[in-house]
Amino acid sequence: MLTRADNANIDIPALMADMGARAKAASAPLAFATPEQKNAALHAMADAIVASEDAILSANEIDMEAGRASGLAGAFLDRLQLDPDRVKAMADGIRAIAELDDPVGSIIAQWDRPSGLHIERVRTPLGVIGVIYESRPNVTADAGALCLKAGNAVILRGGSDSVNSSRAIHACLLDGLQAADLPADAIQLVPVTDRKAVGEMLKGLGGTVDVIVPRGGRSLVERVQTDARVPVFAHLEGLCHVYVDASADIHMACDLVVNSKMRRTGICGAAETLLVDRAAAPAMLTPILDALDAAGCSVRGDKDVVAAWPKATPATETDWTTEYLDTIISVALVDGVGGAIDHIGRYSSNHTEAIVAEDRAAVDRFMTEIDSAILLHNASTQFADGGEFGMGAEIGIATGKMHARGPVGVEQLTSFKYLVRGSGQIRP
Amino acid sequence: MLTRADNANIDIPALMADMGARAKAASAPLAFATPEQKNAALHAMADAIVASEDAILSANEIDMEAGRASGLAGAFLDRLQLDPDRVKAMADGIRAIAELDDPVGSIIAQWDRPSGLHIERVRTPLGVIGVIYESRPNVTADAGALCLKAGNAVILRGGSDSVNSSRAIHACLLDGLQAADLPADAIQLVPVTDRKAVGEMLKGLGGTVDVIVPRGGRSLVERVQTDARVPVFAHLEGLCHVYVDASADIHMACDLVVNSKMRRTGICGAAETLLVDRAAAPAMLTPILDALDAAGCSVRGDKDVVAAWPKATPATETDWTTEYLDTIISVALVDGVGGAIDHIGRYSSNHTEAIVAEDRAAVDRFMTEIDSAILLHNASTQFADGGEFGMGAEIGIATGKMHARGPVGVEQLTSFKYLVRGSGQIRP
Repeated sequence: MLTRADNANIDIPALMADMGARAKAASAPLAFATPEQKNAALHAMADAIVASEDAILSANEIDMEAGRASGLAGAFLDRLQLDPDRVKAMADGIRAIAELDDPVGSIIAQWDRPSGLHIERVRTPLGVIGVIYESRPNVTADAGALCLKAGNAVILRGGSDSVNSSRAIHACLLDGLQAADLPADAIQLVPVTDRKAVGEMLKGLGGTVDVIVPRGGRSLVERVQTDARVPVFAHLEGLCHVYVDASADIHMACDLVVNSKMRRTGICGAAETLLVDRAAAPAMLTPILDALDAAGCSVRGDKDVVAAWPKATPATETDWTTEYLDTIISVALVDGVGGAIDHIGRYSSNHTEAIVAEDRAAVDRFMTEIDSAILLHNASTQFADGGEFGMGAEIGIATGKMHARGPVGVEQLTSFKYLVRGSGQIRP
Repeated sequence: MLTRADNANIDIPALMADMGARAKAASAPLAFATPEQKNAALHAMADAIVASEDAILSANEIDMEAGRASGLAGAFLDRLQLDPDRVKAMADGIRAIAELDDPVGSIIAQWDRPSGLHIERVRTPLGVIGVIYESRPNVTADAGALCLKAGNAVILRGGSDSVNSSRAIHACLLDGLQAADLPADAIQLVPVTDRKAVGEMLKGLGGTVDVIVPRGGRSLVERVQTDARVPVFAHLEGLCHVYVDASADIHMACDLVVNSKMRRTGICGAAETLLVDRAAAPAMLTPILDALDAAGCSVRGDKDVVAAWPKATPATETDWTTEYLDTIISVALVDGVGGAIDHIGRYSSNHTEAIVAEDRAAVDRFMTEIDSAILLHNASTQFADGGEFGMGAEIGIATGKMHARGPVGVEQLTSFKYLVRGSGQIRP
């Protein structure tokens, strides 16, 4: 068991710089490890997790006891807790990653030039990825496996509350690497809980870290985005909108709004604001809000909404910028698709927005003019997910516009290089 | 004419923040300007440049006089100087950019999901690009046009020595924007020469700048890479290698080495180091070095090279890390392709490397194991250029692994978003 005292007298900057150098060194051979070798490691990791169920659960119990003793909240303890089903799900998740197409070396584009040169753009790993996460111990397995599949070395920094669980899982990942003769430094777990280690990672460990992925709540992501001196794949929040156009099918609108908001309220793809076309309001507002109400959702409306549907409480300006992650929705009337675009442009976090409409021109305008990572037509915002997109596992969803955007799966954890084949061409 | 005194009493941070906000505001409508509208603006810009030749040359003469008076070096003055041919070349360059395919809205990938959802990944502009450059006034036209073609707003910050030339060219770009009814803030030129303006741009102007592109010498790029708090597309240097394998055709090897080094020595794709397979040395080293010598190139060799070809001077450790940009080459013998990979891994700037070989296994290993932006087989390193790749104009070459790598053309100045089309799908 790791205690705070273990951090005493450790030179954190030196320790972290060494981890960075090791990761960088491991990333070179990983970049051209064969798909078979990487998949053998992944399957061996899954086997080791299944075989180590008892050890993982015992380690987790130590974390749980410490968490209860320090008065952690119930939701936090639930994320921390492992059980045999969750251990099996981790192993299954790793096997699913093994089944994905190997992105490394795949040809993204190729063309011939008048000079006779043949040019290929092929995928390469990014290099070294730093993953900073909180209480969920399964991130250790997911992130480790996903980075390996894409040929990257990874430095994992889990929450201090799950440190024993993460260590037990990490030991299984190391077993898998060893079984496939891959370097142990391909997947490193920061061995100290001192938060200085995070600060070092955000500075890039002497240029060895290519990208940082934070997995956790708003305060973690905010700190990472503010302090990181290296690129970050993340979203701060998912302030997702559903716009119901006057041309919408009313039944579809009710179903999509309720599903977008209520299927799971705690995920980043959950809708937080409903925008209803003023022209649709007389016919559609009440049935949609009744459906939300019947599903257990509270409504905060602008003054027109409150006037039309008195159960709504008045929304304030902060409601338009609040990611509730709860059974609450803010609702405004807008002047057609142009009004929806304006509202979204002002308040959105550029994660995911949906339009419910049958009018092609309104749909085209919504899809063209809004610059969010994911735009949906006649589909629930809850589809904003790498698995639903067919990308397999995802390490998160990015709302930045550089490199990765939307679900960050194995393909988004790669870069590319150009291979140019000639027959002696010199440039005139 | 702008003088240093013009900078007095200007609140640079406020000025630059305002430019950032204007660029951001302009970027929204630019993102969905039609190809026809953008091309109309580009052709009108080219027309304005041709029509304003006298004004541009007069402004340039002011810069040239100031440059001569302050004792600027001849090479610097040559880059600064405009003449009727160079003015025409600027206009032609803009027209060539107009002819490129419009990247915005193009579908990068699309697929169907078992849920019935159809997913498209489509190109979008990046947003706001900051370009920081030195004495070449033509960058004003090239960079302004390229950013516009990709639907981005741009903030241009040219060198203080070319400020009058850049202003005259920028006026033509504004004419073009106005003729096509596009916002003037789409292409802004920083109006002050105070270097504090660069510092503000590197901080990102309050989150409005999405990427910075430095165009200039090593010290500029180094400052930008060190100080920028936003992503940068750049290469610090092009320390390009040519490796001649024992399986190479000797005549091809001579031609490719001489062309890679000597066609133009001052560009980033020029070869700086020649690596010769130890097994090839007895037959090939002397003819290759004789060919370089005949072309006017000095050779700095490791001890084996000096022993075999006494005209070579001994290379020191710093030669392996020096980008000469001159008629000098460093030469080492290596143990086959593995030795070449090791040398390149240690010393390369990850820009461009070439292998001359007929042995397929050696070529595959070189292409697979080296992680540089561009790898060439049996072709000159001088092909490392967006135009030669068929990308049209380029804003530079990037050696980073995030987002853009290799030549940065109009396509690399875009991001993407996902458009998901359904028929009422809710997520179970």
